[in-house]
Amino acid sequence: MKRDLVTIDDLSDETLLGLMDLADRIRRQLRGHAADLPGTLMGSLFLEPSTRTRLSFETAMLRLGGRVITSSDPKTSSASKGESLSDTIRIVDSYVDLTILRHPAAGAARAAAQIAEGPVINAGDGSHEHPTQTLCDLYALRCERGRLADLRVALYGDLRYGRTTHSLARALVRFGASVLAISQGDLQLPKFVLNDLRREPGYAVAPVALVGLESVLSRPEVPALWISRGAKESSEVRPMSLDPDSIDAIYVTRLQKERMSGAEPLGSLPILDHRFLAAPPFRQTVVLHPLPRVGEIARELDQDPRAAYFRQAALGVPIRMALILWCLGAVDLPAGAAPRARDSVVHGFRCENAGCISVLERGTIPPEVTRRGADDPRCAYCEETAVLAYGGRPFPEPA
Amino acid sequence: MKRDLVTIDDLSDETLLGLMDLADRIRRQLRGHAADLPGTLMGSLFLEPSTRTRLSFETAMLRLGGRVITSSDPKTSSASKGESLSDTIRIVDSYVDLTILRHPAAGAARAAAQIAEGPVINAGDGSHEHPTQTLCDLYALRCERGRLADLRVALYGDLRYGRTTHSLARALVRFGASVLAISQGDLQLPKFVLNDLRREPGYAVAPVALVGLESVLSRPEVPALWISRGAKESSEVRPMSLDPDSIDAIYVTRLQKERMSGAEPLGSLPILDHRFLAAPPFRQTVVLHPLPRVGEIARELDQDPRAAYFRQAALGVPIRMALILWCLGAVDLPAGAAPRARDSVVHGFRCENAGCISVLERGTIPPEVTRRGADDPRCAYCEETAVLAYGGRPFPEPA
Amino acid sequence: MKRDLVTIDDLSDETLLGLMDLADRIRRQLRGHAADLPGTLMGSLFLEPSTRTRLSFETAMLRLGGRVITSSDPKTSSASKGESLSDTIRIVDSYVDLTILRHPAAGAARAAAQIAEGPVINAGDGSHEHPTQTLCDLYALRCERGRLADLRVALYGDLRYGRTTHSLARALVRFGASVLAISQGDLQLPKFVLNDLRREPGYAVAPVALVGLESVLSRPEVPALWISRGAKESSEVRPMSLDPDSIDAIYVTRLQKERMSGAEPLGSLPILDHRFLAAPPFRQTVVLHPLPRVGEIARELDQDPRAAYFRQAALGVPIRMALILWCLGAVDLPAGAAPRARDSVVHGFRCENAGCISVLERGTIPPEVTRRGADDPRCAYCEETAVLAYGGRPFPEPA
Repeated sequence: MKRDLVTIDDLSDETLLGLMDLADRIRRQLRGHAADLPGTLMGSLFLEPSTRTRLSFETAMLRLGGRVITSSDPKTSSASKGESLSDTIRIVDSYVDLTILRHPAAGAARAAAQIAEGPVINAGDGSHEHPTQTLCDLYALRCERGRLADLRVALYGDLRYGRTTHSLARALVRFGASVLAISQGDLQLPKFVLNDLRREPGYAVAPVALVGLESVLSRPEVPALWISRGAKESSEVRPMSLDPDSIDAIYVTRLQKERMSGAEPLGSLPILDHRFLAAPPFRQTVVLHPLPRVGEIARELDQDPRAAYFRQAALGVPIRMALILWCLGAVDLPAGAAPRARDSVVHGFRCENAGCISVLERGTIPPEVTRRGADDPRCAYCEETAVLAYGGRPFPEPA
Repeated sequence: MKRDLVTIDDLSDETLLGLMDLADRIRRQLRGHAADLPGTLMGSLFLEPSTRTRLSFETAMLRLGGRVITSSDPKTSSASKGESLSDTIRIVDSYVDLTILRHPAAGAARAAAQIAEGPVINAGDGSHEHPTQTLCDLYALRCERGRLADLRVALYGDLRYGRTTHSLARALVRFGASVLAISQGDLQLPKFVLNDLRREPGYAVAPVALVGLESVLSRPEVPALWISRGAKESSEVRPMSLDPDSIDAIYVTRLQKERMSGAEPLGSLPILDHRFLAAPPFRQTVVLHPLPRVGEIARELDQDPRAAYFRQAALGVPIRMALILWCLGAVDLPAGAAPRARDSVVHGFRCENAGCISVLERGTIPPEVTRRGADDPRCAYCEETAVLAYGGRPFPEPA
Repeated sequence: MKRDLVTIDDLSDETLLGLMDLADRIRRQLRGHAADLPGTLMGSLFLEPSTRTRLSFETAMLRLGGRVITSSDPKTSSASKGESLSDTIRIVDSYVDLTILRHPAAGAARAAAQIAEGPVINAGDGSHEHPTQTLCDLYALRCERGRLADLRVALYGDLRYGRTTHSLARALVRFGASVLAISQGDLQLPKFVLNDLRREPGYAVAPVALVGLESVLSRPEVPALWISRGAKESSEVRPMSLDPDSIDAIYVTRLQKERMSGAEPLGSLPILDHRFLAAPPFRQTVVLHPLPRVGEIARELDQDPRAAYFRQAALGVPIRMALILWCLGAVDLPAGAAPRARDSVVHGFRCENAGCISVLERGTIPPEVTRRGADDPRCAYCEETAVLAYGGRPFPEPA
């Protein structure tokens, strides 16, 4: 079977940890892998701009001794002549051994993986997923903290449009983490993400007021949620004390202004600085950020040993090297059951997400709705909740 | 002598077939050529966007073990500072071993080939030629049909602005093909192309009404021409019956809207679908398309074994690998007399094509008018008909 | 210590000549270095467009057997999301072994060199410097003239905005050259450049009227300066005769229209052509130009053996290959004292150049003012004259 990476849920816990073990080994001799993939060609297909992610993938492939063809300007691509994604993918796939795809439509990577004969890695598909960022985030956590199990991680900033926080939260609870979500104004974690987290056995979501953090997080417009095994669901905000040095990591994101309508009340969060990190729960916290940052983290922290964001960015290369080797079948890793494997197709529903590839290229991409266990049916591409297809009654399932 | 590819007429029949034989051998082990061209550098100079063609050439070079430098954004190039093509070529040629040039001006590739010391391959020069597309089309025909001699090929769609159909038709008649040109409204094969085809010994052009195809091609606004040895020139449309299974291939093109003035009546052709291919003459037809397509071919055909367009696109890599090896002198192929070798310089004429490089860069590119046998004098760059240079009388030829 | 190239003054005379000796050896077998830098990765970071310089660097790295990642479109970079230069550099530096930086802000390369752990080469930083162009110009002079010592070089054209002439003039006087600066209208060498040249022991600047050159340079609006050991400073223009065949090289530049306000009176200089070079002092002159040219040099000269500008462009590859090898520590060269080594930090001054990186990214880039010997204090980044920081009195130097 072909190894694609469309969402982080394509990877079992075992494979995730196996990739990190492999990345650890690669890191010890980053320049010693130039003969790993001779004669192998990667297509770097960025139909939406993203220099950092693109350079990180290309670095990974070149350090493995492979070669790269790049299309990074959407305006000069065949798409600008009206070509469908599936035609573009079919052709590039026929040229290369592995395709990296960045695309503005949600679900584009899944569509591409279905079409291509070679493996496809999602480098960001619209508002849907960016699984290698999550892989890199998890790997950075493990490198900084020495483990991935049972961490206490604060998410901080734009948790509504910062899709990397959604994937990270979902992945963290798979490893037993407690998550403290601190956002501003309307930019809280969306309900569908919270529902996903609640589904993890034992998990609940509690709105909290952080006792003792008035000096840094005193304002009522800064909502916080405690998402943990043993938390208690509640409709009202309850005070909560965090033990000194209890937060392992704080993951900061910038306002995703390019995804906002402009009408959202932004509120404001304190900038992360030395004063912030002097608060007892955060004294041993490592600071992560998917970058680019635009002012959320004070520059004075750059020299602080707790500032891990540049180390995190550098780890994007070895973890992507590990991923490429695995996708190309050049290494074997422990398998295990991926969350995606629990999905089953359901009929009688349809996707109505105007930003989903299955809607944008209707007639080209075969629609598909799936359900994980007892969850609501979702579009298999964009993972938005699907709606009943006809007059409120789903079609009967085929026999 | 240096080996450039400016027009498909630079290649003799023998060399064309030799390239295809070589591509056949390469295809058997596409990944086994990574040591063919060590230390060889290709300049990929796309002064007009074309992602697919560029990626195809770069794939070919990288699979041969060479390396590539790329300039694909006209806005960031030295040309945007007012530099002439010849200066740009002189410099890039001094960096690399082989230059691939895409340029908006007709004849640019010939000018570049004259200037450069290394070989130049035309990757499309304005409305003039795109010889590696033709090479790929011919190769796909041979791969799908097992031979190139005496094929019956239908050209279908925008035959006026779809320059690939012009080159393909000219090349096909060199191998004895019969061509059925089916177009829409004003988008017929231009007269100068028809005249070229008529010049092939024995060939004539007959306007025809296809008997029995009323169900798919019934409308009078769909003109068809039968171009074949033994056809009879006529000013009126005569009925013609095609035998069942008689068309070997149908070559479809999209409307080249970017080359249209907007005033052309477009008419409309039926979309190619299962119903179309069920008509008796087309039942064994393979379907080709230079891609990108934008609706000319129904998606339902994609799974049909007769749909050869994605196989055709993939063949662009091995045939370009063969071409690069030959241009760099890394292989020898049968020589033979190329059609271009019959051209001789004539004096007293000049090019007046405003899109021709010799007009756009007058003073830099030395003008030249040539004639093939008894043909009208043409600009040696853009191959448009040249006009008398002075007061209606050509200069006397030099002794 | 890390080897960066920020300005040509980072290189001692000995190292400059050592680089040229190395480039000479490389040139003898340009294609024989494909195994020099296996597994080495260069970041080609062009945050301002420059195809020729970029391709020249990438050619150099690929001919050395290294590999390249490229970001050449400022609009698709993280900078367009508001990321600071220092963050961008930190991340790219963590990917690669060597960074080539082109940036619109003066001093950007120095800032990058301070931040990066790997070496940084300045490929042009705003109006400040373009040291590899100067390196290439000097190397071309030595290749054409057989030596670099005591040359007589004319600079011709836009000497105000053509920053390559500034660096070249400064470097030439280090090797004892006499410089004849011929410009048009307001486009003369700026005062700060002349003052730099005057500081070289024994040098003076004399405004001259060139006797016997009335036929080519007769107009009073064409000012000329003679900058030489033994020249006599003067406020009035004195006649000067140049011996026949006395000018070794003429270095021509185009009008840098993209840097002009539009209000400058441009005047006009004769186009360089055969008639110009027939004037006795220029009969043995080689003609150099950093290219692209846009009409300053007549095309009739292209075939003249004295026209060295295309040879000069081609020399950009071997000299950059030598530079890359040296920066990466793959070769050792004679050291010697670089002019930059004489700079010392001064306090109480600040940079007020709105185009300087230390002003544009205040708070990120630590400001620094230095002085070379008794010179005026200058910003260490953009090298513009610094101003007193507070109320006209410099801060006391720290003990």
